[in-house]
Amino acid sequence: MNKISLIVAFFFAVTTSFAQHKSTWIWYPGDYEVWLSNDMQNRRTERGTFFPPFWKMDSHYVLVEFNKEFDLPADEEISIYAEGKYNVKINGKMLPGAPAKVQLQKGKQKINIKVYNQTNVPALYISGKNVYTDHTWKATYEDKEWIDETGKASDQSGTTYVNAGSWNFDSGAAKPSTFRLPTRPQQAVAQGRQGKGFLVDFGKNTFGYLTFQKLVGQGKLKIYYGESKEEALAADRCETLDLLDVSLKAPTDSTLELSKAFRFVYVEPEGTVRFGQVGMLYEYLPVEDRGAFRSSDQELNRIWEVAKYTMELTSREFYIDGIKRDRWIWSGDAYQSYAMNYYLGFDAETVKRTILALRGKEPTVSHINTIMDYTFYWFLSIYDYYRYTGDKEFITAIYPRMKTLMQFCLDRRNTEGLMQGLAGDWVFIDWAEGLSKQGEVSFEQLLLCRSLETMALCAHLVGQPQDNQMYQKEAAILKDKLFAYYWNKQKNAFAHSRIAGQQTENITRYTNMFAIFFDYLNQEQRAGIKSNVLLNDEVQKITTPYMRYYELEALCELGEKDYVMKELKDYWGGMLKLGATTFWEEYNPAKKGAEHYAMYGRDFGKSLCHSWGASPIYLLGKYYLGVKPIEAGYSRYEISPYLASQEWMEGKVPTPKGEIELYVSKRKIKVISPVGTGVLKFSSKTLPRVNRGQVKHVTDHHYELLLEPGLLYEVDYTDAGK
Amino acid sequence: MNKISLIVAFFFAVTTSFAQHKSTWIWYPGDYEVWLSNDMQNRRTERGTFFPPFWKMDSHYVLVEFNKEFDLPADEEISIYAEGKYNVKINGKMLPGAPAKVQLQKGKQKINIKVYNQTNVPALYISGKNVYTDHTWKATYEDKEWIDETGKASDQSGTTYVNAGSWNFDSGAAKPSTFRLPTRPQQAVAQGRQGKGFLVDFGKNTFGYLTFQKLVGQGKLKIYYGESKEEALAADRCETLDLLDVSLKAPTDSTLELSKAFRFVYVEPEGTVRFGQVGMLYEYLPVEDRGAFRSSDQELNRIWEVAKYTMELTSREFYIDGIKRDRWIWSGDAYQSYAMNYYLGFDAETVKRTILALRGKEPTVSHINTIMDYTFYWFLSIYDYYRYTGDKEFITAIYPRMKTLMQFCLDRRNTEGLMQGLAGDWVFIDWAEGLSKQGEVSFEQLLLCRSLETMALCAHLVGQPQDNQMYQKEAAILKDKLFAYYWNKQKNAFAHSRIAGQQTENITRYTNMFAIFFDYLNQEQRAGIKSNVLLNDEVQKITTPYMRYYELEALCELGEKDYVMKELKDYWGGMLKLGATTFWEEYNPAKKGAEHYAMYGRDFGKSLCHSWGASPIYLLGKYYLGVKPIEAGYSRYEISPYLASQEWMEGKVPTPKGEIELYVSKRKIKVISPVGTGVLKFSSKTLPRVNRGQVKHVTDHHYELLLEPGLLYEVDYTDAGK
Repeated sequence: MNKISLIVAFFFAVTTSFAQHKSTWIWYPGDYEVWLSNDMQNRRTERGTFFPPFWKMDSHYVLVEFNKEFDLPADEEISIYAEGKYNVKINGKMLPGAPAKVQLQKGKQKINIKVYNQTNVPALYISGKNVYTDHTWKATYEDKEWIDETGKASDQSGTTYVNAGSWNFDSGAAKPSTFRLPTRPQQAVAQGRQGKGFLVDFGKNTFGYLTFQKLVGQGKLKIYYGESKEEALAADRCETLDLLDVSLKAPTDSTLELSKAFRFVYVEPEGTVRFGQVGMLYEYLPVEDRGAFRSSDQELNRIWEVAKYTMELTSREFYIDGIKRDRWIWSGDAYQSYAMNYYLGFDAETVKRTILALRGKEPTVSHINTIMDYTFYWFLSIYDYYRYTGDKEFITAIYPRMKTLMQFCLDRRNTEGLMQGLAGDWVFIDWAEGLSKQGEVSFEQLLLCRSLETMALCAHLVGQPQDNQMYQKEAAILKDKLFAYYWNKQKNAFAHSRIAGQQTENITRYTNMFAIFFDYLNQEQRAGIKSNVLLNDEVQKITTPYMRYYELEALCELGEKDYVMKELKDYWGGMLKLGATTFWEEYNPAKKGAEHYAMYGRDFGKSLCHSWGASPIYLLGKYYLGVKPIEAGYSRYEISPYLASQEWMEGKVPTPKGEIELYVSKRKIKVISPVGTGVLKFSSKTLPRVNRGQVKHVTDHHYELLLEPGLLYEVDYTDAGK
Repeated sequence: MNKISLIVAFFFAVTTSFAQHKSTWIWYPGDYEVWLSNDMQNRRTERGTFFPPFWKMDSHYVLVEFNKEFDLPADEEISIYAEGKYNVKINGKMLPGAPAKVQLQKGKQKINIKVYNQTNVPALYISGKNVYTDHTWKATYEDKEWIDETGKASDQSGTTYVNAGSWNFDSGAAKPSTFRLPTRPQQAVAQGRQGKGFLVDFGKNTFGYLTFQKLVGQGKLKIYYGESKEEALAADRCETLDLLDVSLKAPTDSTLELSKAFRFVYVEPEGTVRFGQVGMLYEYLPVEDRGAFRSSDQELNRIWEVAKYTMELTSREFYIDGIKRDRWIWSGDAYQSYAMNYYLGFDAETVKRTILALRGKEPTVSHINTIMDYTFYWFLSIYDYYRYTGDKEFITAIYPRMKTLMQFCLDRRNTEGLMQGLAGDWVFIDWAEGLSKQGEVSFEQLLLCRSLETMALCAHLVGQPQDNQMYQKEAAILKDKLFAYYWNKQKNAFAHSRIAGQQTENITRYTNMFAIFFDYLNQEQRAGIKSNVLLNDEVQKITTPYMRYYELEALCELGEKDYVMKELKDYWGGMLKLGATTFWEEYNPAKKGAEHYAMYGRDFGKSLCHSWGASPIYLLGKYYLGVKPIEAGYSRYEISPYLASQEWMEGKVPTPKGEIELYVSKRKIKVISPVGTGVLKFSSKTLPRVNRGQVKHVTDHHYELLLEPGLLYEVDYTDAGK
């Protein structure tokens, strides 16, 4: 069983996200996420020059009221910490000044605290025996509490209170505005003279703050960063650099201010500047190590490990695209990070933070990241989040912002009721040469349709039956149009677009592959798409891991897991063969040498550590270990393991209540789950034997075994493949 | 002619608001106003406790792009100052780093600069020979400038650019975020021992930072502020106080941090704390001294001077309500400050700043200050501003925010198409005992109707004919309803309200008096209102200077200027007789002694320096000096002087191009104007003689004289009164 142990006596770990009985800093929900993401996203530099995003960045409410009512069993003293000016009312009576300690009496106590802060996010922390701040406190940005000329207070029935936002700032001293990701020192693997300077190699792509031992002297210190050696040595073309003025009389251990991505660093001192070892402080988001995968195939293991490291690097304050260039939150990229995360750290907080930051605040004036498709992925991400975590509270909190964003989309439909790029709308789809964005692109209609279905599901969840019906109806109408306008019967596939009322001749992979895993097709249509599009080399190939993710997912859904396994090894294995230590933004096997590093018309424009490169984590977890929730939060789930070319594989898949652990060889399956009711689906040439439960024979070689939580199941069988 | 000289050789002064050819700090329009008003409005304390507003406070855009194109006659160097991180693009090419100096070449140069600042407002200042920042620069909060995979930039046709905002920060060193109002030292008139402390009297109500000469020792320093002596001495009930810990070994001249309003200060040192003279730094908004009024009536002169001082004190970063308590921007209060300002400092910048701060930003979630009527005054203030200043640029800039606010109002109408207080709407009208706010109050419909007319006027101004028609139609429909639902033919007056579809019996002054100066009535209706409402003591009396302003304006419009003059002297003279040094929030002659200081159920709750108390400035300027614009910016204007009980009066009324100067006695009128075409209207028992121009006989004793700019007119006549 190697490093992964299948524990029999299972402990039902309660994760911090779902139940905590301690004080934590609170704020108006979404505001800290907006503030922190502004900070993070404005750290991008391009060759030393500040390079901010090009979309609207929102701001926090500067004045927030927090309140909660308590019924105290005894007198107690509470401590109050606030970020900002504040006042305190107890049972409607204002206390003098801004008290740090308050004595509360036994019985009903209503606490109202207003915090004002224009610089940072107004935030509050209270600790006491029974009175402590957490997400159950209410918050508003306008309490509308006026008085009349006699001093009588208004009723505040027009005030909207929402649950406060929080994260993990659980100490009064840990002010949210001072938050920084943790770091740890990391050494270079080589440092050698080259030209007028030194080339430093950290052995693999990494992220953090460069350090210089015993930096001393007068003059410039020129630092050129490279995700490749070629980039670090191309002083005039590398994407990031630091040009520093050094003036140090005594040797001083120094750390640079702005974090960067690099494997190689080329350092050129001028004047009398000297230094010792160049090292770094590696900066990271602490995420629990939960998902795991190991297999008899060493290349696959290496792919999974590099994908995991790629995810680690791109999981920061929020899920970012890549570590070198943008370091921004892109909704389409983040959507894939969420999915990978469900098979890795199961870090619900970072998913929520990212979803909130992407949405920003009203008014809604453009698509998320200005990209039409990225708005739609945002909707899709929310129901996915619910399916994996079962966290209905978040859906309830975000639903109003979903509604207004959907209304923004519906208001932008043309007279045909279709989405077409209006001025300022970026129709992205994929980085692909010559891909047409003209007219009404079928892919955007498909994503809107799925988004409407998502709205209907969420409306039902939060108890809005009228909304539910409305969105269902809109989705049905649009789905009919999708087939009427875009389905090409001759080609047995969806056309790429419609221009001036006419279906275009072009067939692309996007709409066709998404329609498969959206389950929009009948058997004949599925077969048509499979042979005419997905397995047809005439159709423009996908070169980004971003869309490879969906292509391979579609092929898995079509039962082509042997083919996909080969593609996984070829494509991601191909990057490894080129020396990749993290996975790339784009990979075209046809290119050679340093050609691989170019993009956007720049020699080193490509990001070599891009979150969407890490999708093997998702594909291996969902389609080979074969674990997925059927109902929210794994209350019902399915395990359909598939070895493909592997002799054996084993792994862990996180759930809200611990990890499902699984071992699969051609003769043995072992599984234990901490949660819900599962169905293990497998095929066997022989009659399987199990240590517990009843195996059900479904059809041909196919069997099912019902799994109950906390019990180790062992199946002896003879793998029959598909 | 005393202090006011009628200059014959007139200089056409160009005011700074309308044409300036120098660098100034710029920002996204409205953002600095929002930021500064947040700062100002969150300085309120009540007995030492922070007391913020209860409505939504907005925030600035944290990332703003500024740009302008130039065609330079020669090479030039520019200097760049920014508040925030920034980058610079010249003709689409990014410059390295964040340059403080840039060399520009002769010819076409397009400059784009992005500034990011989460703490303060992103702001920019550029100085150069031809290139300098001013309100002609364009700004946006989302430039939508993405690139495709080849590096090709998107078209930015979806980006909305607006003219940059600015004020008077004309030096690169004068960063907008560091702005403070200026101060000057001011001495107390008396400082004497009283009880355990000292009572200090500043001789009149004032505002600023208390100073202590040679403060020394260990212990508490308790400071109680009073607009009255009674308040300063009521340690347990005064509205504002400071409780300071002193720990000074050497005597130190000290200034307090937070400005306060006071005439009297009671200071109680404890422990070994001692100090010398108590003084203050008087804090003020510098406003040009332009409007003037003097008369043979000394009481009237004193009223005008105290009103002027009241305006001076309540004109701060923005027009505030009063100096002691709220220090907030209230739309209804500010609306009156604007009007007074047009007859005093003619400070267009402070009007614009206040209008922008009140509007705040999208989304619109409640009425301005939460008050329905205050939203409507905001609309009315904008067309007024245009009428007095002729500044169409501001109307164009604010029009989009007017439209969205009006849509907010229209969306809140009930099924009858009428405004009725919904949850969270404060129907204020006036501080008046027992005033009903139930049902559909006629006053709110009247104000909405006038607001719709204002929208129509502004739509026409900014070239939006469809909007113009739509608003005209809405206004006409509502005006019909106003008469159909509220006009009571028996009482010949508007009813106060309508409840459950029925007109109520109650008649109040508000709707009736506004309908007069809105010119909504025929002669019979006017006469009815005059006798049945305005001159009818049975109808609940008005006790606030706030509504007295409108009541007296209505009476002036009805030709009751003799009556109004008497009221002016009785009411404002009444406050003076009680020792007022500034005018009050409310004055009820029936009250006695310290009763006058109570309000809101608190002994000293009333503000004794309230901007709405200063209305004699407006009434004397508009109805006695009789000067008002007929067309925007005084391009056409009218002067209808009226002496009433005065022997003579003289004054100056500011216009965008200097002051109209006027002297009027019972036998002589002298006038000179720097601007437009005026009509002097007067009545004479004898045939008037003039030094220039042609007197036109209109009817009975009424004459008109056409005035051309820059010429002194002298009229010999015999005043015939009405």
